[in-house]
Amino acid sequence: MIKANDPSLKSWIEVPPDSDFPIQNLPFGIFKTQSSSSRVGIAIGDQVLDMSILNKLGFLDDFKIDDSIFTNQYLNDFIELGKPLCRSIRQRVSNLLNVNNPELRDNKNAQYKVLNYMSNVQMQLPVKIGDYTDFYSDIERNIAAKVHTSSKAGISFRKHLPLGYNGRASSIVVSGTSFHRPKGQIKPFGSDLPVFDSTKQLDFGLEVAFIVGKQTPLGKTVSTATAEDHIFGLTLLNGWSAHDFHTPEDIQPGLFLSKRFITTISPWIVTLDALEPFRTQGCVQDPKVLPYLEYSGEKNIDINLEVSIQPENSDEHLISKSNCKNMYWTIEQQLAHLTSNGCNINIGDLIASRTICAQNTDSFGSMLELSLKEMKAIKLKDGSERKFINDNDTVIIRGYCEKNGVRIGFGEAKGKVLEALNS
Amino acid sequence: MIKANDPSLKSWIEVPPDSDFPIQNLPFGIFKTQSSSSRVGIAIGDQVLDMSILNKLGFLDDFKIDDSIFTNQYLNDFIELGKPLCRSIRQRVSNLLNVNNPELRDNKNAQYKVLNYMSNVQMQLPVKIGDYTDFYSDIERNIAAKVHTSSKAGISFRKHLPLGYNGRASSIVVSGTSFHRPKGQIKPFGSDLPVFDSTKQLDFGLEVAFIVGKQTPLGKTVSTATAEDHIFGLTLLNGWSAHDFHTPEDIQPGLFLSKRFITTISPWIVTLDALEPFRTQGCVQDPKVLPYLEYSGEKNIDINLEVSIQPENSDEHLISKSNCKNMYWTIEQQLAHLTSNGCNINIGDLIASRTICAQNTDSFGSMLELSLKEMKAIKLKDGSERKFINDNDTVIIRGYCEKNGVRIGFGEAKGKVLEALNS
Repeated sequence: MIKANDPSLKSWIEVPPDSDFPIQNLPFGIFKTQSSSSRVGIAIGDQVLDMSILNKLGFLDDFKIDDSIFTNQYLNDFIELGKPLCRSIRQRVSNLLNVNNPELRDNKNAQYKVLNYMSNVQMQLPVKIGDYTDFYSDIERNIAAKVHTSSKAGISFRKHLPLGYNGRASSIVVSGTSFHRPKGQIKPFGSDLPVFDSTKQLDFGLEVAFIVGKQTPLGKTVSTATAEDHIFGLTLLNGWSAHDFHTPEDIQPGLFLSKRFITTISPWIVTLDALEPFRTQGCVQDPKVLPYLEYSGEKNIDINLEVSIQPENSDEHLISKSNCKNMYWTIEQQLAHLTSNGCNINIGDLIASRTICAQNTDSFGSMLELSLKEMKAIKLKDGSERKFINDNDTVIIRGYCEKNGVRIGFGEAKGKVLEALNS
Repeated sequence: MIKANDPSLKSWIEVPPDSDFPIQNLPFGIFKTQSSSSRVGIAIGDQVLDMSILNKLGFLDDFKIDDSIFTNQYLNDFIELGKPLCRSIRQRVSNLLNVNNPELRDNKNAQYKVLNYMSNVQMQLPVKIGDYTDFYSDIERNIAAKVHTSSKAGISFRKHLPLGYNGRASSIVVSGTSFHRPKGQIKPFGSDLPVFDSTKQLDFGLEVAFIVGKQTPLGKTVSTATAEDHIFGLTLLNGWSAHDFHTPEDIQPGLFLSKRFITTISPWIVTLDALEPFRTQGCVQDPKVLPYLEYSGEKNIDINLEVSIQPENSDEHLISKSNCKNMYWTIEQQLAHLTSNGCNINIGDLIASRTICAQNTDSFGSMLELSLKEMKAIKLKDGSERKFINDNDTVIIRGYCEKNGVRIGFGEAKGKVLEALNS
């Protein structure tokens, strides 16, 4: 049997060459249609495979999966089946979609029932998220270091351990969710007294996040070597922030109200299996890390990232290209660190790596980084300028891996900013 | 009908005068017995009323509650019935337990089925906690200000807004749960290089927390005037910490691994209704707060708090007495602030107020505060000394209100520290 991520695989479903979802990807998500409730889906080309109907029609009979696993508001119950079973099911779907397999290819009636065009479905939040943790994984992000830490000490400590904080799970939403510009306490320049007003410094935050796929009990640590068993897959994440809310909060531990008003994630969870061919050598970690953070092998992932702004009634404007292969800490190290104090993890926990920026000037993970680096506003195609995100702007994050003619994409994490409410 | 918190009420169940659970309290919790699965209970004296059986026997027929609400692992579904209905059910239980009501008083057979001695039940985590937020509500806690903030700015900003951070929900456990001394990166004195070792500065953190009882959608704010509608009740909370993990993390936003390894809460949720008679005038807030934080009426709560340490095979030693009536920010202000940026809240969210310490020297909310204030270790009854918490120590937090001969107690938030694991 050919592995589900083999570059030679072809599907009988036509997949455009620039599609994020070739047969090698097969990411999981939750969708509904006008006539159906929430259910588990797999993306293939510009279509979504309905796993619930696939199961009902008997194509997954070997696995004896209760339909409630697939007719579900979240992927958590599916993920709880365990990685070996989830992997086998994904492999079975790969076989069913394979150009050489007539089972579904030659059964038009079944195809009609199990496939939906993406344009006809509404993607949902894929997992019920328990806890959300946000890491700073990029040592070189010196701008952030300057802003948030007493810089030299900050850089030095970052090389001993991944720095993170607890985020807010309730306000994590799926791509496509609009939100009103948030309000908060802002200290006007030159004044000692704060005012309560809508943010004037709304920003995006380019991040990649992974979903915990296997729980641990309290007191149990996870090693870097076994971390992969606890990671189901990855999504894109926009960690929106209101920088001017920082002012009074800089002094407190935790990015609090300036961050927790909304967080946008992409709807498809790309499995670690699909990403395996894009693993790459990580950074040289100097000074040497403590034993619980040591690891071997190629553990970074070569994912191209792009951020675009689309003003109302205007074209998209690509404002940043980046890549997460330069992350200082691997996702396995993040999980080992997170659990090093015995903190338990649950299926559906979301662990993100904060804004990634490479060395070249067109690569940055937030408007703030760009402003500080370029010392000027960005000029968009429509002639307008941006230092931060305007009302009615849509920010779109995209990500994809590419190698040997195979493109494994994440889809989009997209969010539109509406004007502040008057209340 | 006499209100359920009326001091004149008496139950036909004998309640010892120093009990936390007279008929005026009737807090909610989740318990199981050797022969039964998890279910909703109400504490009365030294007994627990089984709400599931009470419902099955027809005593709650007027409310037409599905039994799955009471035969449940968590209180969330019960809370979701809404405050008016929960209040009516609690009032009905008050009537059933009233000395003048023969319904249950004279029905020995039903009593036998619905009542369990506390010593025979095992209390569970009462709610499925979504997000956990921790506030610093005490302006005067200058020791903490010195540790965590650039002190003067810290104190000044604290008077404009409640400072908080996101905690970890997964590691919140019910009273009685033991845990192993956690490990983390510690920077030995005089060294630039961290080591990975068990904490030598394990501390408790005296806190009171409230449980969100009504959700809001994303973008919706909650005013101080309506906050009470969103608060189901209060519990005690021990926010354990490992101070020596702070060293490398001080520079990062958020108390992270130093705090998230475990958090202990008491099993009974005392309703706001039961606490109503103990509302008291809050602090004078100067400077004047912004309009969204303004409130009227007596909104602090006069709750006596006590912390004891019980070494292995030794007597309890009371080490601190405190009170939460001196909190600078009311719980209603905390909720208004938390939602001021449009962040949504869910039933079961836990919002805590960090360590409370009054002015007198025997009042402090952590060993660190005591050490810094007293400049010496505490001597326990058994002759041993403590600067921090030792292995095999049990820390017990208790809380109660008292007025007009009525004592409304919270029970205990108790946790025992086991030696660090070798793994």
